[in-house]
Amino acid sequence: MTLRFGVVGTGAIGREHIQRITNTLSGGEVVAVTDINQESARNVVHQFQLNANVYPDDKSLIADTSVDAILVTSWGPAHQATVLAAIEAGKYVFCEKPLATTAEGALSIVEAEVKHGRRLVQVGFMRRYDRGYVKLKEAIDSHEFGAPLMLHCAHRNPEVGEQYTLEMAVNDTLIHEIDVLHWLVNDDYTSIRAIFPRKTKYALSHMQDPQIFILETVGGIVITVEVFVNCKYGYDIQCEVVCEEGTMRLPEVPSIISRKDAKLSTEVLTDWKQRFIDAYDNEIQDFIDAIRKTGQPQGPTAWDGYIAAVTSDAGIRSQQTLEKEPIQLCNKPDFYNH
Amino acid sequence: MTLRFGVVGTGAIGREHIQRITNTLSGGEVVAVTDINQESARNVVHQFQLNANVYPDDKSLIADTSVDAILVTSWGPAHQATVLAAIEAGKYVFCEKPLATTAEGALSIVEAEVKHGRRLVQVGFMRRYDRGYVKLKEAIDSHEFGAPLMLHCAHRNPEVGEQYTLEMAVNDTLIHEIDVLHWLVNDDYTSIRAIFPRKTKYALSHMQDPQIFILETVGGIVITVEVFVNCKYGYDIQCEVVCEEGTMRLPEVPSIISRKDAKLSTEVLTDWKQRFIDAYDNEIQDFIDAIRKTGQPQGPTAWDGYIAAVTSDAGIRSQQTLEKEPIQLCNKPDFYNH
Amino acid sequence: MTLRFGVVGTGAIGREHIQRITNTLSGGEVVAVTDINQESARNVVHQFQLNANVYPDDKSLIADTSVDAILVTSWGPAHQATVLAAIEAGKYVFCEKPLATTAEGALSIVEAEVKHGRRLVQVGFMRRYDRGYVKLKEAIDSHEFGAPLMLHCAHRNPEVGEQYTLEMAVNDTLIHEIDVLHWLVNDDYTSIRAIFPRKTKYALSHMQDPQIFILETVGGIVITVEVFVNCKYGYDIQCEVVCEEGTMRLPEVPSIISRKDAKLSTEVLTDWKQRFIDAYDNEIQDFIDAIRKTGQPQGPTAWDGYIAAVTSDAGIRSQQTLEKEPIQLCNKPDFYNH
Amino acid sequence: MTLRFGVVGTGAIGREHIQRITNTLSGGEVVAVTDINQESARNVVHQFQLNANVYPDDKSLIADTSVDAILVTSWGPAHQATVLAAIEAGKYVFCEKPLATTAEGALSIVEAEVKHGRRLVQVGFMRRYDRGYVKLKEAIDSHEFGAPLMLHCAHRNPEVGEQYTLEMAVNDTLIHEIDVLHWLVNDDYTSIRAIFPRKTKYALSHMQDPQIFILETVGGIVITVEVFVNCKYGYDIQCEVVCEEGTMRLPEVPSIISRKDAKLSTEVLTDWKQRFIDAYDNEIQDFIDAIRKTGQPQGPTAWDGYIAAVTSDAGIRSQQTLEKEPIQLCNKPDFYNH
Ligand SMILES: [Mg+2]
Ligand SMILES: [Mg+2]
Ligand SMILES: [Mg+2]
Ligand SMILES: [Mg+2]
Repeated sequence: MTLRFGVVGTGAIGREHIQRITNTLSGGEVVAVTDINQESARNVVHQFQLNANVYPDDKSLIADTSVDAILVTSWGPAHQATVLAAIEAGKYVFCEKPLATTAEGALSIVEAEVKHGRRLVQVGFMRRYDRGYVKLKEAIDSHEFGAPLMLHCAHRNPEVGEQYTLEMAVNDTLIHEIDVLHWLVNDDYTSIRAIFPRKTKYALSHMQDPQIFILETVGGIVITVEVFVNCKYGYDIQCEVVCEEGTMRLPEVPSIISRKDAKLSTEVLTDWKQRFIDAYDNEIQDFIDAIRKTGQPQGPTAWDGYIAAVTSDAGIRSQQTLEKEPIQLCNKPDFYNH
Repeated sequence: MTLRFGVVGTGAIGREHIQRITNTLSGGEVVAVTDINQESARNVVHQFQLNANVYPDDKSLIADTSVDAILVTSWGPAHQATVLAAIEAGKYVFCEKPLATTAEGALSIVEAEVKHGRRLVQVGFMRRYDRGYVKLKEAIDSHEFGAPLMLHCAHRNPEVGEQYTLEMAVNDTLIHEIDVLHWLVNDDYTSIRAIFPRKTKYALSHMQDPQIFILETVGGIVITVEVFVNCKYGYDIQCEVVCEEGTMRLPEVPSIISRKDAKLSTEVLTDWKQRFIDAYDNEIQDFIDAIRKTGQPQGPTAWDGYIAAVTSDAGIRSQQTLEKEPIQLCNKPDFYNH
Repeated sequence: MTLRFGVVGTGAIGREHIQRITNTLSGGEVVAVTDINQESARNVVHQFQLNANVYPDDKSLIADTSVDAILVTSWGPAHQATVLAAIEAGKYVFCEKPLATTAEGALSIVEAEVKHGRRLVQVGFMRRYDRGYVKLKEAIDSHEFGAPLMLHCAHRNPEVGEQYTLEMAVNDTLIHEIDVLHWLVNDDYTSIRAIFPRKTKYALSHMQDPQIFILETVGGIVITVEVFVNCKYGYDIQCEVVCEEGTMRLPEVPSIISRKDAKLSTEVLTDWKQRFIDAYDNEIQDFIDAIRKTGQPQGPTAWDGYIAAVTSDAGIRSQQTLEKEPIQLCNKPDFYNH
Repeated sequence: MTLRFGVVGTGAIGREHIQRITNTLSGGEVVAVTDINQESARNVVHQFQLNANVYPDDKSLIADTSVDAILVTSWGPAHQATVLAAIEAGKYVFCEKPLATTAEGALSIVEAEVKHGRRLVQVGFMRRYDRGYVKLKEAIDSHEFGAPLMLHCAHRNPEVGEQYTLEMAVNDTLIHEIDVLHWLVNDDYTSIRAIFPRKTKYALSHMQDPQIFILETVGGIVITVEVFVNCKYGYDIQCEVVCEEGTMRLPEVPSIISRKDAKLSTEVLTDWKQRFIDAYDNEIQDFIDAIRKTGQPQGPTAWDGYIAAVTSDAGIRSQQTLEKEPIQLCNKPDFYNH
């Protein structure tokens, strides 16, 4: 029983997911596609030799009874409506971040899913499927290191273009830490504060880069995250968890170890796509497998998407005030505790 | 166009490959199985919910016109006959090591394939699909480090059981280095010598453990390989390539980095299956993809299986003589140079 | 020409310095000692077989014309008076931290030294003599990595006793980072803020542990320092400098690299004395050498002692307010710019 | 009570030792010097402002009653006669390698010392004073890792000049491993074999480079040593000890850890002097301290010098034969077992 996908949005990320469902993963098939650019949608069918219908819009694609699951890879502001329509039709949804561009929007999806009565939605926070983070979580959950007290993280990109804005540092960059860190320590955020260090000479004039964010949780954990998007040297994701009995860090990306020109060195990635390439495969494979085995996805939920939206909003407020901004979630539906 | 596998041998390795073809990889399907234990074959069909015929023997399975490729995971001594029959039928073959238990047997397969006129056979030397070895090879082939002069390698297992024999140290353990190292440096072996260090107290009385093997190549590269199968501490594969401009080593297996109890540490694997788990996936996926795209497998060839057989024979002779034993290959068919 | 030391305070640190001057270093000699416990002073002379006079107090020791330099290793509150008396007598002073227990006291020493017209005082901030920090500073000063933007530091002790107080986390622990970090980046602090994460279960009830301090500089550098004095796993000092072109970290303490029991590990120190043992030797040797060669010490100055005092005061205020507390220095005498 | 040195040979190594005795170490003083180039001897006195007599030859220097210990840093072929004369005079000797240029010569020194009845001689094998080797030895001697079975070592220099000969690869380079490794495992060598890999393009035409040496011990330990003196990338000394319960390696030389230009790297030394700079200090300090405390040196003995001579001879024979050459020592005088 193959999981049949309808893809909404055939841009770069959409094509990558189509590629992995078609040529790398097991148990899934793309049977329908749509894009506001219809030619793009048709080209994708041809490019990947799909046996798939091309639809004029998300509504008609969702209505196709041969479609089991909607893969939402459209423009961010369009996500919310497509996800709500899919839930309305009782279809599974894998939605790339953001689930919605506002906290209210994300909450409306949570409410629709709760009303539906069964999990349908998974949000594309792929880091939870990275082996390093998975091992960190296993170690934390084993209690072998005692309770986590602090996290020291860094999210570094070699460079960003002119279109990159101050808000994107939160919505597109920090967002990955926002999701993965509360999952890692199984706790909820209470506040976030932005701090602006000296600007690198490589930052464009409209941008503050680097930035430091300090998140605190209900349990008192303090999290420092450096966001540095013109760090020049590579794409580098760091996470150190300081616990009562010891500390743990993400593994370095494996690389051959060379001795040359008076240096002992390993490689640092420069292309972000390489860093989580297995995680992208794993998140979609898990979506397929979980639905085939249990009838529900088991990855990041709509509630996680809501947490990300609320926390991002607070982060952006703090970029303006440089004050500690509270993060207040509404009550978590019991639905998401199972 | 799915590649349809007939599996000969449904023991442990057979089941693992069936599992990955069925649930992990893309583009393959198991449509026929056989085993000398027919109940084992039937159980596998049930266990993996295969839509597959159960055959009484390899001949009848090979004759099934719905079978495109034969996966040989039977007992080693049975491999040669199955592979020859598959070639006779013009079918693709993925054969676990050894290709044959004698150099003559391996050579007969080479000759059959050459006569057939097109590559059909891939041997299950999975290390060539390990990311670490692949990166080593890319670095060597880039000439950035100059010519390779020496390799220092270690193959360590935490322990082996009573059934493990002196010959198995060559045929089952060293065999992986034998295959991957000549591929790595693109050279042929000329001799091998065994050296027996002090025995570990953990070696059973009939065994010599550890052992050191010194291989030399046509190009003059000297390779030292430590084989230590009761090293206790873990499963550990090391390979350092010393070149004219610098050295390169295999990456360590990625693991979280912890500080605890006055130690800064990472984990060493103890289960050999974990070490090359991705490589096993990759070798079969590549077999499927290459056949689908080009009509031929592109992995380790029957000729590579022949090299392994000749080199193993010399290694076992040296275990008896402790002398430098020559390794003489017959002329390489031009067929394998493309 | 040997530098002849008079030692004020023959407790643990005093004895260690006497030991190194007498048995390890070159060019110094202890010729006079005093301690409020006269028997301790006499015992030290005997223990190290010194050819030294025992004095009843610092005044009479300073007056001894055979004494070139005063080594101040008495109780902290006594430092200021001894240092001022030594300056008054025109003698060199090596004073262990703190130079004075108040900013005003430190400033009075600065003023006395300026009035004297020539450098006499060195403060015992030994980290500047640690090879790791020295190499970090060389790399920063080389401009090869561009300007420093952020520092991420940790100061971890395995445990502290009941006598350890909240203020000591600043005055005795953070003080080392306070001194070494402004020297490292050649900048002055403008503010400090304390953050209190979840308490470790190993913290005594009167203590907050761990703590995070955020320092900012005139040049905009943001420094995060984790102070964690019951971290259990070891004594561990970390410092990462994030610059415009790349990052640099302190080396790990060298240790044999072992593979055992499924771990690849190096040792983490548990005894803080081992961590900077070479630095302690180097700071006193440099004090001796600089005076012998140039007539002045060249290590951490009285002004550096004043900076430490002012910054510590602000740090302690922030432990109470958890607000960003300003750090305001009086004008730096030109005297210290050479 | 200062140890008063007479230095025989004021070339580069002699000056370095004079420098450390005079300006770095404690408890030693240079009171006499000689050199076949008398002007060199006089210059050294001036350069280091020594209060020392200049003698026309080693005999007259040894005769000076104010001289306690002879430091032999002359041309290698001259060592034996000076050491014998010093023993004859009952004076301590610190002799740079080689103790003698022939095994017979070394043995004559052993016999003279035994006849004298008390240890006088220490040979300048400084590696035993390197912290890394010391820690390896402590770990081996603790039996925590079980018995050592194999050692894998490398001795790499960035390059050598035209004057470097095949024999020097043994006498000047391998010699350090020859001494330190038998001390490390507390065992004696029984044979050595040279293997010649493919030559690096950087080797001069008269030279074989790299070379591999295989040493075996009475206890069955097998030692592989790569000697590679034009490795280009740096000066790098590696030693891995494979034991029954695990393995241990020398630490890497500590260096700041940088991330820059897509590399995570540490520095590899290029100047061999930097590698063992602390060990050179420690060996002389220990020579001084041991004599002052116990009346005898406790470092590498004349017997160790003899072992080095016999083993080097066998190594050079194997460079000619490429066969396993036996290493036969005469009976060890009981004198050296204490
Ligand atoms: Mg995603
Ligand atoms: Mg295989
Ligand atoms: Mg100090
Ligand atoms: Mg020496």
